[in-house]
Amino acid sequence: MTISDLGEFGLIEAIAAALPRSDRTVVGIGDDAAVLSAPDSRVVATTDLLVEGRHFRRDWSSAADIGAKAAAQNLADVAAMGAVPVALLVGFAAPGDLAAGATVAGGDVSGADSVVLAVTALGDLAGRDPVTRAGARPGDVLAYAGVLGESAAGLALLEAGLTRPAPLIAAHRRPAPPYHAGPEAAGLGATAMIDVSDGLLADTGHLARASGVRVDIDSGRFPGNPALAAAATALGRPGVLDWVLTGGEDHALAATFPAGRELPGHWTVIGQVREGQGVLVNGNPATGRAGWKHFGG
Amino acid sequence: MTISDLGEFGLIEAIAAALPRSDRTVVGIGDDAAVLSAPDSRVVATTDLLVEGRHFRRDWSSAADIGAKAAAQNLADVAAMGAVPVALLVGFAAPGDLAAGATVAGGDVSGADSVVLAVTALGDLAGRDPVTRAGARPGDVLAYAGVLGESAAGLALLEAGLTRPAPLIAAHRRPAPPYHAGPEAAGLGATAMIDVSDGLLADTGHLARASGVRVDIDSGRFPGNPALAAAATALGRPGVLDWVLTGGEDHALAATFPAGRELPGHWTVIGQVREGQGVLVNGNPATGRAGWKHFGG
Repeated sequence: MTISDLGEFGLIEAIAAALPRSDRTVVGIGDDAAVLSAPDSRVVATTDLLVEGRHFRRDWSSAADIGAKAAAQNLADVAAMGAVPVALLVGFAAPGDLAAGATVAGGDVSGADSVVLAVTALGDLAGRDPVTRAGARPGDVLAYAGVLGESAAGLALLEAGLTRPAPLIAAHRRPAPPYHAGPEAAGLGATAMIDVSDGLLADTGHLARASGVRVDIDSGRFPGNPALAAAATALGRPGVLDWVLTGGEDHALAATFPAGRELPGHWTVIGQVREGQGVLVNGNPATGRAGWKHFGG
Repeated sequence: MTISDLGEFGLIEAIAAALPRSDRTVVGIGDDAAVLSAPDSRVVATTDLLVEGRHFRRDWSSAADIGAKAAAQNLADVAAMGAVPVALLVGFAAPGDLAAGATVAGGDVSGADSVVLAVTALGDLAGRDPVTRAGARPGDVLAYAGVLGESAAGLALLEAGLTRPAPLIAAHRRPAPPYHAGPEAAGLGATAMIDVSDGLLADTGHLARASGVRVDIDSGRFPGNPALAAAATALGRPGVLDWVLTGGEDHALAATFPAGRELPGHWTVIGQVREGQGVLVNGNPATGRAGWKHFGG
């Protein structure tokens, strides 16, 4: 059974039948547009585009992996505002000969030469103020929740033709962002927050710039990660810090909190917010690949 | 200046600077997600994906045309629910050597071998019930607002290497859906409504199926369209009815209303809702190309 056999409307019906229907859905799949409840009288909205060959390879990831990854990166953006996810809208383009199988989709379906997924996530702040990138103040601490560098290490392993350590391959194929930590951070009084999609240095740089502050990161505060260390050894790399500082796509959350705020154990304090600008690591201006450049470079 | 020169963040900044900011925007471009007000406590949401070579050709449409068309097809979906548009989220992927110019975008930007646009529109029902496809009842009339067949005729002209009649070329490049007619129809008591994106027969068929009714269309009720007639003559086609009945992408709105309802002049009654199923034209089951098949066939 290929997508051509199913046809556009058959594909949409197959998808709609497989998806849960939320009590937040007033009008669901199958009309011109969805209607969703927004009891907070505000809606958080974000969109991402994933292009085959650029963001994923079908020989390295299953359809379900790709769908889950596309969802994860949008849901992490919702969490990074301090909101909980309400709905996903998915646009999907694929060659007609693509075999139909398990996937996450809905919204719009069309033909294309390669697979393209467009995911929009909507979220609910439940009465809380959004946590933007712009609220960090000198004296705050920088902390993160989730993992750093695992997706990048998994990609490096795949590129080298390796499939172990398996958890790193899984981290690349299907990231598991700490969604709950986003609304939690908002409740704990986070002053600024960002989804780490381009790498910790690059995204902390965005937060520092939006807030008009400097952030000093202490690399000694990152917990050890035996799987990362094993991957570095397997690939003959000198260490793991480059992955931790510049690897994107794990969708950890980085947030700033007022000094002295008691944080749950899954938040790790790794830095200080100061007067100034930019990001320093151990007192030195950040060097190396400062996040993923999508165009050229 | 190409997109590679600008870079992802430069492109986003250039786009953000060019776009108006609405008073409905709580948090706009530049954070992990947008936050939009939803005073109605519901949000209408729809998404579409446009792929170069499939939905547009860069040699036939300018960047501004493509952006406007992508926006139009989503805004028409919002209107077809009876809502007014609040916000657009745009995902954009393009080759790095694409020259940067006027375009509609925002949301997510990434590299790709061809140009892909993903547009999500959000809308506000302002307290009205959504008008779905499922509410048509025997005895209702079918009416439409906007134009039918002009985009299809414009495409046929371009495919034949012709550039006149100019209004049809413009209709293909930059459709002008009757957005205001959507909320208007809701206020006039429309029982069902749909955006004509796949062609009148196909989309009326969706409405008939969702409502569990038959729709009889009287082709004699379509007003004459001299530009369409001129295009048919230029292309040696026997008439214009095929374009009117099966041409998509004009994004006219088709709606059903209780019999006897007084409608403004920009709504044209073209049919009757009956017991049964399917769509008849002049009493005969609809034949010919019943709308655009996106996959294969």
